[in-house]
Amino acid sequence: MRRTGRFSLIFDHAPRIESTGTIVGKNEAEGPLGEWFDIRSEDSFFTQKTWEQAEAVMQQTALRRALEKGDLESAALDMVFSGDLENQCIASSFGIKSFSIPFVGLFGACSTMAQSLALAGLFVECGAAGRSAAVTSSHFCTAERQFRFPLEYGGQRPPTSQWTVTASGAAIVVSDELCKNRKAPVLKAARFGVITELGVKDIANMGAAMAPAAAEAVSGFLTDTNQTADDFDMILTGDLGDLGLTLTRRLLDDAGFHTGEKIRDCGCMIFDKNDQKFGCGGSGCGCSAAVLNSMIYAKLCSGELKNILFVGTGALMSPVSVFQGEVIPAVAHAVQLSAKP
Amino acid sequence: MRRTGRFSLIFDHAPRIESTGTIVGKNEAEGPLGEWFDIRSEDSFFTQKTWEQAEAVMQQTALRRALEKGDLESAALDMVFSGDLENQCIASSFGIKSFSIPFVGLFGACSTMAQSLALAGLFVECGAAGRSAAVTSSHFCTAERQFRFPLEYGGQRPPTSQWTVTASGAAIVVSDELCKNRKAPVLKAARFGVITELGVKDIANMGAAMAPAAAEAVSGFLTDTNQTADDFDMILTGDLGDLGLTLTRRLLDDAGFHTGEKIRDCGCMIFDKNDQKFGCGGSGCGCSAAVLNSMIYAKLCSGELKNILFVGTGALMSPVSVFQGEVIPAVAHAVQLSAKP
Repeated sequence: MRRTGRFSLIFDHAPRIESTGTIVGKNEAEGPLGEWFDIRSEDSFFTQKTWEQAEAVMQQTALRRALEKGDLESAALDMVFSGDLENQCIASSFGIKSFSIPFVGLFGACSTMAQSLALAGLFVECGAAGRSAAVTSSHFCTAERQFRFPLEYGGQRPPTSQWTVTASGAAIVVSDELCKNRKAPVLKAARFGVITELGVKDIANMGAAMAPAAAEAVSGFLTDTNQTADDFDMILTGDLGDLGLTLTRRLLDDAGFHTGEKIRDCGCMIFDKNDQKFGCGGSGCGCSAAVLNSMIYAKLCSGELKNILFVGTGALMSPVSVFQGEVIPAVAHAVQLSAKP
Repeated sequence: MRRTGRFSLIFDHAPRIESTGTIVGKNEAEGPLGEWFDIRSEDSFFTQKTWEQAEAVMQQTALRRALEKGDLESAALDMVFSGDLENQCIASSFGIKSFSIPFVGLFGACSTMAQSLALAGLFVECGAAGRSAAVTSSHFCTAERQFRFPLEYGGQRPPTSQWTVTASGAAIVVSDELCKNRKAPVLKAARFGVITELGVKDIANMGAAMAPAAAEAVSGFLTDTNQTADDFDMILTGDLGDLGLTLTRRLLDDAGFHTGEKIRDCGCMIFDKNDQKFGCGGSGCGCSAAVLNSMIYAKLCSGELKNILFVGTGALMSPVSVFQGEVIPAVAHAVQLSAKP
């Protein structure tokens, strides 16, 4: 590992994503990426009695599927990094507890897939783990009733709002020596983000709240590593939504980082803008987890994508901080992923 | 770094705790360790309008004090690991956002001081950071109204219950080469814990819920590193309380790990059992953070303590999981700290 620039880390030992697993709900299955997901459920309870239990089972299932696809036992893992949006991250602790693997609980809001993947990569890179897993989830129903209104209320939303995605994704990171998947893409570098806010307080406009953090992460990583957007096939944010993506593009343009069409957003990809009416798009830890660990992972394995910058963006408020009139701080973490050369 | 046993990590490059900072409320200041804390406030609002804002200011103040005591600017830090008990960890994000340092948000309940310290140590050990900070907090009033009852209700508690400590503690971990404090103790090893539960569901008996995780952490670390309790001056858990500590001792005895009086608990140390009536003792991320980063740190610097095992223990439930009849899973992380040889 080498540090470069102010805050970025170059992984010299090529930790690789050996396998991934994804599970999604009905709306996500009906979206444009539906066929890419491993497990699609019509049942928002995923056979459980409560949505909170459902979300825990989703995490467990995503990780089990990733292990199965990699032909691995859970004992092959040395660490699990996991987080979600629920109070006290109970989807993670209840989802992961049956694996009997050292557990690091994270809170990064929607940035958690990038945060957990960067940590899993770093642990493998420095030899702290032979194999480590990154898992996150979100569930529309757990998030909606926790952050906004009871589901039964059927609250309307302004067009700037995003819809929490019901999904979970897991990635298993492994050292180059242990990797059994010859096509497994490589974690090249990572940068943990700095908390950023430009005074946005509108809970129905998370894209605007997160755009400054996304721009900070992209510009910071490109500066630190002396790269430009041209060096990447895609800069994949998650999850800014339509408005947040537009604002991020503009902030980056203004700062001299021209990303143009290179920058895409998981929240804009998971739902069909015309057929599915979900405001500015999807959000939630599970959104970028599902998109990254399905289609994007497959295209990195096939070589269709050669080099991407994955940037998870999270809004770090709570209902209490919003009620108390606080701004919405945000953070974004960046991970560079490349096809196996 | 070397991995040893199943899950433990030996730090070969001697990352060191260069400085620490602590801030506590009135009850903690009046307890047996009162004189050891850097800042003692009579005002539970810490000059803010709400307790949530107060807790964020406590984190900020603890970290600023640690920087001051180390004669450091915040730009000397490359990473901050931080967590707390509030929903969406807002004490951490609002407390840390003014520092403009890469931020990794954690959720480990009361285990967070050990979790953040282990990560800060690992980042320095492997060169991902020159200096990194570990910060946690808890506040009786934010925790009470979030997890239990409105403060005005004045709810009574059973004798097995613990009281959330109003405190924050910060530790700055630095590489041996950069360390300016000749007496700074050394992080020798760490082990991230496995989620453990033995079916306890009583929210007023967190000690019983956490004891199995504490025993897992201590026995796992001693086995992995081929050490016994005799190799340590103290095994310092945080925060099991009186009953949890008794149960942990018994679980360890039954498993053949005789810790006897070597095992102490931050939750039992922070309040006076006779003069202050706080049930089984203190709890909350801020409890072990305040105890470790004040008296224990000072005694490691002076050499009065030569070698300790610090074990943070956290109960990973939420009010929602409890209402839904779930068990209380727990996790404990272990860090070995030694006086500079």
